[in-house]
Amino acid sequence: MDYAVLGKRTPKIDGVAKATGSARFSRDMILPRMLYGWILRSPYAHARILNIDTSRAAALPGVKAVITGRDTAGVKFGVFRETRDQYALPIDIVRYIGDEVAAVAAVDEDAAQEALELINVDYEVLPAVFDPLEAMRLGAPLVHEGVDRNISAHVLIQFGDIEEGFREADHVREDHFETANISHSTMEPYAATASYDPSGYLDVWVPNQGPFMRRRALSNTLKLPLDNVRIHKVHIGGAFGGRSEMMSCEFCASLLSMKTGRPVQIAYTREETFTCTRQKHPFIVDIKTGMKWDGTLTARQYRVIADGGAYLNTGPITISDSFAIALASYRFAHVRYEASRIYTNKGVRGAMKGQGSQQLRFAEDSQLDMMANDLGLDPIEIRLKNAVEPNEMLLNKSRVTSCGLKETIRESAAAMKWEKPSQKTTRDGRGKGAGISAMISGFSMGIRTSSSSFIKFNEDGQITLLSGTVDNGQGNETMVAIIAAEELGIPVEDIRVVNADTTLTPQDPGSYSMAATFVSGNAARLAAADAKRQLLEIAAEKLEANPADLDIRDKRIFVKGSPGKGIGLKDVVWAGLASGRPVLGKGHYQPDLAFMDTVHGKIEGQVTGAYTFGATVAEVEVDRETGRVDVTKVAAAHDCGRAINRMAVEGQIDGSVVIGQGQVFSEEMRWDGGQCLNASYTSYGLATALETPQVLPIIVESDDPNGPFGAKEAAETINIAIVPSLANAVFHAVGVRIQSLPISPEKVLGALESCKAL
Amino acid sequence: MDYAVLGKRTPKIDGVAKATGSARFSRDMILPRMLYGWILRSPYAHARILNIDTSRAAALPGVKAVITGRDTAGVKFGVFRETRDQYALPIDIVRYIGDEVAAVAAVDEDAAQEALELINVDYEVLPAVFDPLEAMRLGAPLVHEGVDRNISAHVLIQFGDIEEGFREADHVREDHFETANISHSTMEPYAATASYDPSGYLDVWVPNQGPFMRRRALSNTLKLPLDNVRIHKVHIGGAFGGRSEMMSCEFCASLLSMKTGRPVQIAYTREETFTCTRQKHPFIVDIKTGMKWDGTLTARQYRVIADGGAYLNTGPITISDSFAIALASYRFAHVRYEASRIYTNKGVRGAMKGQGSQQLRFAEDSQLDMMANDLGLDPIEIRLKNAVEPNEMLLNKSRVTSCGLKETIRESAAAMKWEKPSQKTTRDGRGKGAGISAMISGFSMGIRTSSSSFIKFNEDGQITLLSGTVDNGQGNETMVAIIAAEELGIPVEDIRVVNADTTLTPQDPGSYSMAATFVSGNAARLAAADAKRQLLEIAAEKLEANPADLDIRDKRIFVKGSPGKGIGLKDVVWAGLASGRPVLGKGHYQPDLAFMDTVHGKIEGQVTGAYTFGATVAEVEVDRETGRVDVTKVAAAHDCGRAINRMAVEGQIDGSVVIGQGQVFSEEMRWDGGQCLNASYTSYGLATALETPQVLPIIVESDDPNGPFGAKEAAETINIAIVPSLANAVFHAVGVRIQSLPISPEKVLGALESCKAL
Repeated sequence: MDYAVLGKRTPKIDGVAKATGSARFSRDMILPRMLYGWILRSPYAHARILNIDTSRAAALPGVKAVITGRDTAGVKFGVFRETRDQYALPIDIVRYIGDEVAAVAAVDEDAAQEALELINVDYEVLPAVFDPLEAMRLGAPLVHEGVDRNISAHVLIQFGDIEEGFREADHVREDHFETANISHSTMEPYAATASYDPSGYLDVWVPNQGPFMRRRALSNTLKLPLDNVRIHKVHIGGAFGGRSEMMSCEFCASLLSMKTGRPVQIAYTREETFTCTRQKHPFIVDIKTGMKWDGTLTARQYRVIADGGAYLNTGPITISDSFAIALASYRFAHVRYEASRIYTNKGVRGAMKGQGSQQLRFAEDSQLDMMANDLGLDPIEIRLKNAVEPNEMLLNKSRVTSCGLKETIRESAAAMKWEKPSQKTTRDGRGKGAGISAMISGFSMGIRTSSSSFIKFNEDGQITLLSGTVDNGQGNETMVAIIAAEELGIPVEDIRVVNADTTLTPQDPGSYSMAATFVSGNAARLAAADAKRQLLEIAAEKLEANPADLDIRDKRIFVKGSPGKGIGLKDVVWAGLASGRPVLGKGHYQPDLAFMDTVHGKIEGQVTGAYTFGATVAEVEVDRETGRVDVTKVAAAHDCGRAINRMAVEGQIDGSVVIGQGQVFSEEMRWDGGQCLNASYTSYGLATALETPQVLPIIVESDDPNGPFGAKEAAETINIAIVPSLANAVFHAVGVRIQSLPISPEKVLGALESCKAL
Repeated sequence: MDYAVLGKRTPKIDGVAKATGSARFSRDMILPRMLYGWILRSPYAHARILNIDTSRAAALPGVKAVITGRDTAGVKFGVFRETRDQYALPIDIVRYIGDEVAAVAAVDEDAAQEALELINVDYEVLPAVFDPLEAMRLGAPLVHEGVDRNISAHVLIQFGDIEEGFREADHVREDHFETANISHSTMEPYAATASYDPSGYLDVWVPNQGPFMRRRALSNTLKLPLDNVRIHKVHIGGAFGGRSEMMSCEFCASLLSMKTGRPVQIAYTREETFTCTRQKHPFIVDIKTGMKWDGTLTARQYRVIADGGAYLNTGPITISDSFAIALASYRFAHVRYEASRIYTNKGVRGAMKGQGSQQLRFAEDSQLDMMANDLGLDPIEIRLKNAVEPNEMLLNKSRVTSCGLKETIRESAAAMKWEKPSQKTTRDGRGKGAGISAMISGFSMGIRTSSSSFIKFNEDGQITLLSGTVDNGQGNETMVAIIAAEELGIPVEDIRVVNADTTLTPQDPGSYSMAATFVSGNAARLAAADAKRQLLEIAAEKLEANPADLDIRDKRIFVKGSPGKGIGLKDVVWAGLASGRPVLGKGHYQPDLAFMDTVHGKIEGQVTGAYTFGATVAEVEVDRETGRVDVTKVAAAHDCGRAINRMAVEGQIDGSVVIGQGQVFSEEMRWDGGQCLNASYTSYGLATALETPQVLPIIVESDDPNGPFGAKEAAETINIAIVPSLANAVFHAVGVRIQSLPISPEKVLGALESCKAL
């Protein structure tokens, strides 16, 4: 297909603003008369608040308001009505070190911080529990009263007959894996600015992945009509799932603004951003898989325990969706999946890039490699043999549409000139090897709420595109602009995107779980198509032609058969205005999907609009003396459907590899009981530019029947695939199999030494 | 008709914000790192700029940029392409005291003002002309080279045979009238804030009556793509026509922001607001009218000279439209109208409430009263006899649709218990009398560009209404909200109006010449109707009914025949969202009108969507010792079509009376050559609350076939009628006829003494 705009390398439309510093993030919202807010946090992992005396704090000069849980409406927040177990400002019990106790607004940061020290809180310290396995024991302290054995969520999903599946197998293995407690590590620390107007309107600037969802949470908890809460668009310095839920930050800023009648900004420290927003669930996975001699999978059984921290909220998604996605990579007829999410007195775990998939697939694909090794099968062949195919119906009756899984396996292997797994030795004596992993993601293109867009034409043929879509930094604004530009035959520069503002823009599900391109992109395309229809009708009169015979390209409408016969777009827009037909498009899109009851693990039916696929082949060098692993080269092939913007897709592939690398080898929040020991970038272990390998991004373009121009999503798959492929590479390099993340030098060295000892 | 929302007394939706001070006007836009701008102005009425040395100013600490005409693109601005004769920052010639010479941006106001003093300008002073009659003489100095006798615009319009008309008359009179140079006297001084982003986007906050027109002017003069200029909505502290055109203020603020990369605010002083924005054209009117013995008008001839000041721009509208409106009040078959607009070296005259009508109708209706007096006819009867009727075709082939002119005459007279003109004497010896005037206005409901609106429903049944309409303070935001609320069966509180933002809202002609209710109101209604259709379709499925049998009221959709059978609006909106049908309305409206070529005085065909009418009866007391006139009571009856909001209509009537009173008795900008002597509120002569008479507002509801719910406009007619009715009242009180405005104590006293002398 010959596209004018689509599929090129288009710089992000907010690129200059970000590069020059003019882009405004939530902390840049400096409003006249603004107050600064700080939050007092619990020093105890579990305690009852007996009394809070705020009188001395309130009396401090410069302090304008002090609030505690008693000043709130006492409404718990959360995405699902039935999983709401957290107050934005706790009233009686605090459940982790950092849990909110009170908040202060003052004329400057110094006064606010000083006021925190003047708040006197009487606590009754309660017994706490930090390890999920301990927490599940009978008699363990309960993080939430009445929640048996601290199981905050539990799902059991079965297809086929698991026992029969294992009977059919020639080889069965059972392995244990563990993943780390990881931070989203957004470069922007969390911050919110709120301004309440005496007319009853609340304006909020806060980094968020879904302004409409955030509006609902604030409306519910603050007891304000939905219409009176406006979430403004701000630039967002990273999200990765961690900016899905409301935080105490914007709730307290809003309530303090309502109390004082002045704007209030609360900016979290890096430590607060680490420990008091959200983190990734660490998983304990026991996985048992059956296989024929030829590598054909017959059955798989999972037992998953996820450490959820102090509250629940989106927790069920992490344990349900991760399995639903698993059904769409390798084919097997019999499966049993049981997962529990456990409360502990630690920071709250929530959604993160891949929603549990990364954790689960580390176990699955490591084990697959181990079984191939057991049976002497080729790691590529075993994946190709079991990989799902286009148009395949999955066990949960969800159909795969487009599917480039096998191509991604073949192309990533080809790019790395993969032959066989082999241990090599570098000139300086390090072990060298490569591992592969193939992955599915792109799950929540099944988001069931629709996105809509409006388009309005300026008199000179430029447009404003009103879209609810959020841009967390991945380029969604540019994505919808390219889609509209392609449909309307205009350049991207002629499009002004207004997005992610609950008052201005139509409803949108938010930029969660890869919904943006598929859902919001389709909505933008349909709005553009509506406007295009109007343009062609007006042009048809001018050209004395049938609208059906016309098309637009390069700001010109022409007769398809005789391109010399045409009229400039601007003239058509003017003609429309002059005759009372301003060109105004609207479009909305919602995939026709089954309801997936995540909370109860009901995942049957068509649960997503599309699935995306990817594979990575990673090459590592392992220093046998220190255990240090260097990633030298990664080929990452991604079936993203049609690439709307090749530059953005490649950027997402690059980023997913680099982020994954840090998550595999170094990232981990370490705890002493309820105290996080390394909530800072100096000690947390993010991978930096120095460790970045050569990345070969490969775009596999399947043409999805339902995606906008055939597009699906870009990013998440590679960030999932990279994890087991690196673990597999370490095995192929030095023969040790590390089954818990991170694969730290200590673990590698320990494993190498154990091997030697054997 | 039984309306749920319409026709009630609805407080303005921005009322609380304005009353509490949270509403943000352009000067309230305090942006981070903002600079303050000041403009250097010419001390000469006419001069050539030989050289400008800005080096000392630029070197002053704190000064970030200095610009002169040489730094601009040298593009003249204006509404009509052919009447553009003004640079936003003059390059070579300055033409009035106050004309712009240079502009400075600095870190604070002090530095900016000091910098102005350091700019060295070499002028060659040129001969100047200040009186329009002198300016028209051959050999007079030319304000603009090549413009013969300083005639900046000239129109000659004739219908019938004027000589024949006078031959048919039994009584012919010729009189001379003069009106004053008046300021719009907006309570908010003029100010603009501009912020240019390195990405190429310019954000501007400026009081304006039409953001889309302002965007075009800035785009043209700054050479920026239209799409890159965004005029934001701000609250506006009064407009009255005076905020129609672009000013040097926002141009310089924008250019300085582009030069410095920082936001720049320029706020005019009260003196600058008086002399360097726009003023009302003073008219010299020679009017000759023919009448039968019974009062039937036969012919009228006008010769008008308007003092236009230094530049032209919208000037032709003032002399053309004023006459086009005149055709729709009293019927006559023969008319000749000739008007010239003259350049003088004084501040620029532009559009003002009534667009020349007030000036012309002062002459017409004063003379009508004089002729009634000459012939012993009753002032009421003579007006009723000649008044146009509903569905009458006017001389220019423009048809009157709804017309309550006679009702307004009768009802205002009845309210004042009018019997006959009579001179009474108060107990303290003052002369007392009442005068009447009946008026037409509502002209530019014929604006030919369309307005459009978008509506989006929140999930709980509240809406955002996106409309281009501007609210200058008269309540247009509330007006569109009421219209949408009535159509959708929801309360006004459930509507959030987003308006007057060129990037966000669809195109709108602006709040000029009473277009807002008729054009923007219709667009809002059509968008609401579109949304309503969608709601009824979704509800029809739920109720198993035909959409045509359904209606909405009080947030509930019900079967018309059996109102017990219904469903809540919120449930319908949710059902729509759940089934991929978000409720999104769009509507646009443009009256089907002939093109009125204002510049050339071509006014034939249907030139307006509707005409509005009004009459005022005013009672005054005149102190024969001092010449002071007190207005004691005014009945003002206004045919506004259907009253959308009775409180707003009554407010407009009150305001129009009070403003008119000041304009009649005290307001006048006085000049010594090119120097305005009283550009301040202490000396200008605004009427204050102390002088406010009792006002009896009377709403005459004609039901216009084309207006939204039958509405037309509210305000302008009364501000026109009040002027001659007060002049007539003075005559009936003490027998003196003042033919030049203002009717100052000096003039009254002089006339009384002349009478005595006779």
